[in-house]
Amino acid sequence: MPELRKDPILNRWVIISPDRGKRPQDFPAPTKKLHKGICPFCHGNEKSTPPEILAFRPENSQANSPDWTLRVVSNKFPALRIEGEMDRSDDGLYEKMNGIGAHEVIIESPDHQADLDLLPVGRIEDTLLAFKLRMLDLKKDPRFQYILIFKNDGEAAGATLEHTHCQLIALPIVPELVRGEITGAQQYFDSKQRCIFCDIISQEKKTGLRIVNQNERFITLCPYAPRFPFEMWLLPQFHSDRFEDCDAQDLSQLAGLLKESLMKMRYALGEPSYNFVLHTSPMNGNNGQHYHWHIEIMPKLTKMAGFEQGTGFYINPVLPEVAAETLRNTKV
Amino acid sequence: MPELRKDPILNRWVIISPDRGKRPQDFPAPTKKLHKGICPFCHGNEKSTPPEILAFRPENSQANSPDWTLRVVSNKFPALRIEGEMDRSDDGLYEKMNGIGAHEVIIESPDHQADLDLLPVGRIEDTLLAFKLRMLDLKKDPRFQYILIFKNDGEAAGATLEHTHCQLIALPIVPELVRGEITGAQQYFDSKQRCIFCDIISQEKKTGLRIVNQNERFITLCPYAPRFPFEMWLLPQFHSDRFEDCDAQDLSQLAGLLKESLMKMRYALGEPSYNFVLHTSPMNGNNGQHYHWHIEIMPKLTKMAGFEQGTGFYINPVLPEVAAETLRNTKV
Repeated sequence: MPELRKDPILNRWVIISPDRGKRPQDFPAPTKKLHKGICPFCHGNEKSTPPEILAFRPENSQANSPDWTLRVVSNKFPALRIEGEMDRSDDGLYEKMNGIGAHEVIIESPDHQADLDLLPVGRIEDTLLAFKLRMLDLKKDPRFQYILIFKNDGEAAGATLEHTHCQLIALPIVPELVRGEITGAQQYFDSKQRCIFCDIISQEKKTGLRIVNQNERFITLCPYAPRFPFEMWLLPQFHSDRFEDCDAQDLSQLAGLLKESLMKMRYALGEPSYNFVLHTSPMNGNNGQHYHWHIEIMPKLTKMAGFEQGTGFYINPVLPEVAAETLRNTKV
Repeated sequence: MPELRKDPILNRWVIISPDRGKRPQDFPAPTKKLHKGICPFCHGNEKSTPPEILAFRPENSQANSPDWTLRVVSNKFPALRIEGEMDRSDDGLYEKMNGIGAHEVIIESPDHQADLDLLPVGRIEDTLLAFKLRMLDLKKDPRFQYILIFKNDGEAAGATLEHTHCQLIALPIVPELVRGEITGAQQYFDSKQRCIFCDIISQEKKTGLRIVNQNERFITLCPYAPRFPFEMWLLPQFHSDRFEDCDAQDLSQLAGLLKESLMKMRYALGEPSYNFVLHTSPMNGNNGQHYHWHIEIMPKLTKMAGFEQGTGFYINPVLPEVAAETLRNTKV
């Protein structure tokens, strides 16, 4: 029997319809990576990108020289522009503002063949540290309300360059889903005086049914009402609304669990394209009590049917308990 | 300069970033249609589907015989089941219910090569009449809160069978986006005592900037804050919250404008995959004053990046004024 399940944070219903489901090995094999001309993210091609904003390289090495392990550069084709005023204005019923923001690329490795999850854990820690450093820097700009960090890995996940990278977009508004999460979490807090994410972690640890893996500080689980097959959420086990408050030890533990979770996905599902999105508190507002930052990981296994975009209503062919069990039992 | 624009109904912001934009002819050519084995929707293969629920066929023709022009059948692989009780229940923090609902397929033509927009207008009218008749029938079942009708056309739009068809899903809940639209429209009505959709149509007719085409009763426009390039909304110019209240003359005019809008999309964009979704009032609730049914049409021209799913925040490379002008000037 298919089930309808409600996400307790967003009050979003999804259909879990396992009769339409497939075994992990039935999902399509990944498209092979293809070289197409010169790659601007590769070692030696530093001049093909805008100048670096941040880089991890030996102390005496020159900026924009080839000797680096991680680089952050502006997106050459930014969705938003850094210069200018917002000029928020009405147009009759409508409202608009200039597309002010930052759009940066975090290149996690100079090696074209690298994959984030197969990097040494210290390098993944560097990537997370780069997220934090860029957030702390961009937070100083009062025009920005939200800093969105995400990864599109593989063509099916929307990547246009195959060389591994993450993206950061600093926005003058708060994205709709994050706003929805905060509202839902606030309502729960108002009624129970507790964080809904903390309560979810506590309930999940009691049953163990949807846990993928965990370490001392972090946990990865398949959410109760997932939109996508094998969707995972990676959360801190301690309460915190801001990713950028992570200290070095947090980042180290986070890197370890992120690596393991992504590798489980790789081996269970045959190296799928995937996205992850960091959900963290907006720059302004007081969400410290009720919001809880986390990373949502979405392997790209099914084509999203148009009606799902058109309605916000999802059909998922895989029960999260089955997905979690598969991932939990996948050795990495 | 990119722009941020807010949808006035959902308060959803999108980035319109035309610097990343392309001309219509730069979007990928459609994937060719492929025959793969026997098609259950073709003339002569009526036994390959569940028995028909509704069909347009000559008066003395037998049910499930080949002599038809339109058939409605149950989905052979339904996302929801028609039999059973909902059994809504809590599971700690979580909430679920049985996946009770109907999942039907509307096959608009017995011809495997047919496309909805290239059918004679009378046959498109038949398709819309089938939507109405199925809605009126399913409304009698008190378990259903919402009847969702949509079309996935082409592989990129999530179609799994190439033979032209629409789908209907009767749901025991109201999809998230429709709920959001109703809430937004209610808030606008509470403040202005007017329907926001009627006000949008009136403002759009003053400028003409985003109008694609119109006839006496209906209008197609590119919305002010579209998520997708060349997104179109087709709305009744008269106020009405329920599609199923259309009379024969409405359906005839609607068929004409839908055909023309889809054909403009076909010729302007090179036969793209597309989706449309009918947004109409839920079965229950009193939304007659503030809600306004409409059809949202979304050509599939760009891969949706994962972060857009993960945040509800969209980047659109084409200004709706440019899209509307292109479509308006496309002869069909």
